[in-house]
Amino acid sequence: MALNSADTAFVEKLWAILPEAAFAADPAGFLVEPRGRWIGQGVVVSPASVDEVSALMAACFEASVPVVPYAGGTGLVGGQVVENGPVPVVLSLARMNEIRAVYPDENVIEVDAGVILQDVQSAAEDAGRLFPLSLASEGSARIGGLLATNAGGLNVIRYGNARAQCLGIEAVLADGTIWNGMSRLRKDNTGYDLRDLMIGSEGSLGVITGASLRLMPRPAQEATAMFVVRSPAAAVSLLALAGERLGETISAFELIHRQGFDFLQEAGIDHKRPFEEAPEWSVLMKVGLPEGQSPQDALEALFEAGDGLVSDGVIAQSGQQAQALWDIRETIPEANKRIGSISSHDISVPISCVPEFIDRAPAILAKIGDFRINCFGHLGDGNLHYNVFPPKGRDRSEFVDQRDAIKTAVHDLAHSFGGSVSAEHGIGRLKVKDLETYGDPTKLVMMRAIKDALDPCGIMNPGAVLRAK
Amino acid sequence: MALNSADTAFVEKLWAILPEAAFAADPAGFLVEPRGRWIGQGVVVSPASVDEVSALMAACFEASVPVVPYAGGTGLVGGQVVENGPVPVVLSLARMNEIRAVYPDENVIEVDAGVILQDVQSAAEDAGRLFPLSLASEGSARIGGLLATNAGGLNVIRYGNARAQCLGIEAVLADGTIWNGMSRLRKDNTGYDLRDLMIGSEGSLGVITGASLRLMPRPAQEATAMFVVRSPAAAVSLLALAGERLGETISAFELIHRQGFDFLQEAGIDHKRPFEEAPEWSVLMKVGLPEGQSPQDALEALFEAGDGLVSDGVIAQSGQQAQALWDIRETIPEANKRIGSISSHDISVPISCVPEFIDRAPAILAKIGDFRINCFGHLGDGNLHYNVFPPKGRDRSEFVDQRDAIKTAVHDLAHSFGGSVSAEHGIGRLKVKDLETYGDPTKLVMMRAIKDALDPCGIMNPGAVLRAK
Repeated sequence: MALNSADTAFVEKLWAILPEAAFAADPAGFLVEPRGRWIGQGVVVSPASVDEVSALMAACFEASVPVVPYAGGTGLVGGQVVENGPVPVVLSLARMNEIRAVYPDENVIEVDAGVILQDVQSAAEDAGRLFPLSLASEGSARIGGLLATNAGGLNVIRYGNARAQCLGIEAVLADGTIWNGMSRLRKDNTGYDLRDLMIGSEGSLGVITGASLRLMPRPAQEATAMFVVRSPAAAVSLLALAGERLGETISAFELIHRQGFDFLQEAGIDHKRPFEEAPEWSVLMKVGLPEGQSPQDALEALFEAGDGLVSDGVIAQSGQQAQALWDIRETIPEANKRIGSISSHDISVPISCVPEFIDRAPAILAKIGDFRINCFGHLGDGNLHYNVFPPKGRDRSEFVDQRDAIKTAVHDLAHSFGGSVSAEHGIGRLKVKDLETYGDPTKLVMMRAIKDALDPCGIMNPGAVLRAK
Repeated sequence: MALNSADTAFVEKLWAILPEAAFAADPAGFLVEPRGRWIGQGVVVSPASVDEVSALMAACFEASVPVVPYAGGTGLVGGQVVENGPVPVVLSLARMNEIRAVYPDENVIEVDAGVILQDVQSAAEDAGRLFPLSLASEGSARIGGLLATNAGGLNVIRYGNARAQCLGIEAVLADGTIWNGMSRLRKDNTGYDLRDLMIGSEGSLGVITGASLRLMPRPAQEATAMFVVRSPAAAVSLLALAGERLGETISAFELIHRQGFDFLQEAGIDHKRPFEEAPEWSVLMKVGLPEGQSPQDALEALFEAGDGLVSDGVIAQSGQQAQALWDIRETIPEANKRIGSISSHDISVPISCVPEFIDRAPAILAKIGDFRINCFGHLGDGNLHYNVFPPKGRDRSEFVDQRDAIKTAVHDLAHSFGGSVSAEHGIGRLKVKDLETYGDPTKLVMMRAIKDALDPCGIMNPGAVLRAK
């Protein structure tokens, strides 16, 4: 079915059904992707309640006007930006930003979808609890978008993705119908799992307007260590050993390559050097233990047990020292940005295949050209950020022609291990073709059938996840 | 669309496409629900591979013959039994019972859907790992059914439902198409979450034929305690306190009422009495800690910190003592069976509402008649098995006329707290009307749209979850 632009006549209709404040946002902040890669189009509308979202959706449905749900706008795959085609309504959740309720005894918080992640973290902390989702954009990413994209981040090994943090959602469907799936229940086996269907659908099946989220106890004590590992294979063995000794108390297990340290230096980013010489491969890990056992001692014991896998290590003895180690990990993306990658990849493979992936990829890329590789990421989840850069002194712009070949080579290799070409960033508009290329054909048929069933006119974020018809 | 019975002519067609062994099962074992409540009908066919399942489904699709996927047959809501209407094919997974692969370093096991839960537990143990799903029927329940019903059980508070144990599935759709969603990945954000849609759909969207499951590290040390709590509210406070002190190391947190002890005695089930007098309310809890801290000490410290909530307690000092405590909990269902309930309920409410639910329900039931109540269950999940029995010396058969009123009263009350009328057992055929009564209307519309999209002829387990059209 042909979609229509949100033209002046249509916007006038919206003015009649929504209060003035819904139209007050400056569109400039909504139409540019965070890295400036894409410039979008659209009429920004900011409803303040689920009923206003419902009225807005009903009007768009009636007029076959496309809708792009917009939360924090921090997505990296263009799910929030429409460059061309019929002009959409950009449905901003920014005005739906109330924390609805906190239930510390139940470890539950209920929030509007427009609440910023950091504010959820703070509310949890105020209640003596932890909201474990944590990622670089937590100061601006909003819950609705984090759920719509099933965001990952640093603590997935212990606490799971955004999906695992969610007990229930409230959403508005394409035709304006409200689905009240808010729930504080830990167990509810009454019918299909629509919550998880909505989570990760990137606004292509409906608009998430509220969520009840799971809180966790705060670990009584935490500690961080950076271990120099002999190889990626040693890192995988260390992960298994750590699991055997420390159970589910490992909160993060990150792999870092020497290139990351080199880039920090090259980009002029100040950082404390944990080792005199940047290690070829290192692991940054955090454990959080219940009362009664020192996490520093546990890391020390792991270091000793890991003899043969680990050649050197530092264990932070204070929160400040721990932060200095985490600063390294957390500023590598900024260093990458300053150096300027030719092509960045968010891939995952089965954890035991990580060493072979790391072993084989450089030779494949070398056939395309002379590149530098910064490979780092969430080893505990088998998730690598595998980013390809020009040689020192050259600029990414010189390598634009090779970008597709690089991307295809990295994705082909990940796929050959049964891996994913989007471990945590989602499909958006950037990876629609990748999904078509690498996705199981039956999965694509099922997805299309579900999309058509729930959004028959195709107005929900058209072109995201699935190609617009 | 009208469905056709699996008549002689159709079965002859099946003989032509499947090997003889697929027809060797004795139907008697497949057509009676475990408690003998329903007697079903159907032609039992036992394919031995996903390709055979695919061929069978294609034939049924072509002929519009209904299919009831059948795993261990231990479900309690009649999802596996068709009493009337067109005679279905009962698709037994019993011959698909291979463990496909174990990856201890990744904490992953891949299995056929017909593997028995206990065999997965054993394979995990052999690899030095834990498969945490654990429930009364684990000796006969099969993985396909456990996933199709999103089974719960004892360890959900720590490890989650069946859903949380699953990384990927292989399934065959209504038309015989195979979806290969097997995956050893911890993170994969490429498209809609079809895995979780299939999990909990009770065979109404497709047949699960294989699964890759998540294994966990085995806790280095475990301990069990039974605490006498002053009230259900004290039990909820103790749960919160335990969470603050012990984090996610609480593996089970069960509430037991005095009636459970009394029933054990009345039913003549031998058991060790942990206290001289059966406590009005008690909590049975298990913790599993990493190396370095004694779980007995942790429980002792919790007991002391819980002063005011807890009035007495025993902490098992050996595996044998722990088992004696668990035997109490695990034989209560058998005692219930011998006493004979009028109506049993598998409800959940938000955890902090449990005390009020327990407080209010008896007065509501007293208006219907004079009953005994055995309320026990997974307090850590807000999940109570709330079972209503005749007074001592009377038989359940005398109260058949009150069954509906009892059920409605319990379900209405649970629903008034935002609770669920099926916390872990599912909908099956028994609770279809409950889902219609209590389910969010939009949810029901969405479920129907998805069912029609993926199973357009309605051959997949018709009448389960959603009413047959």
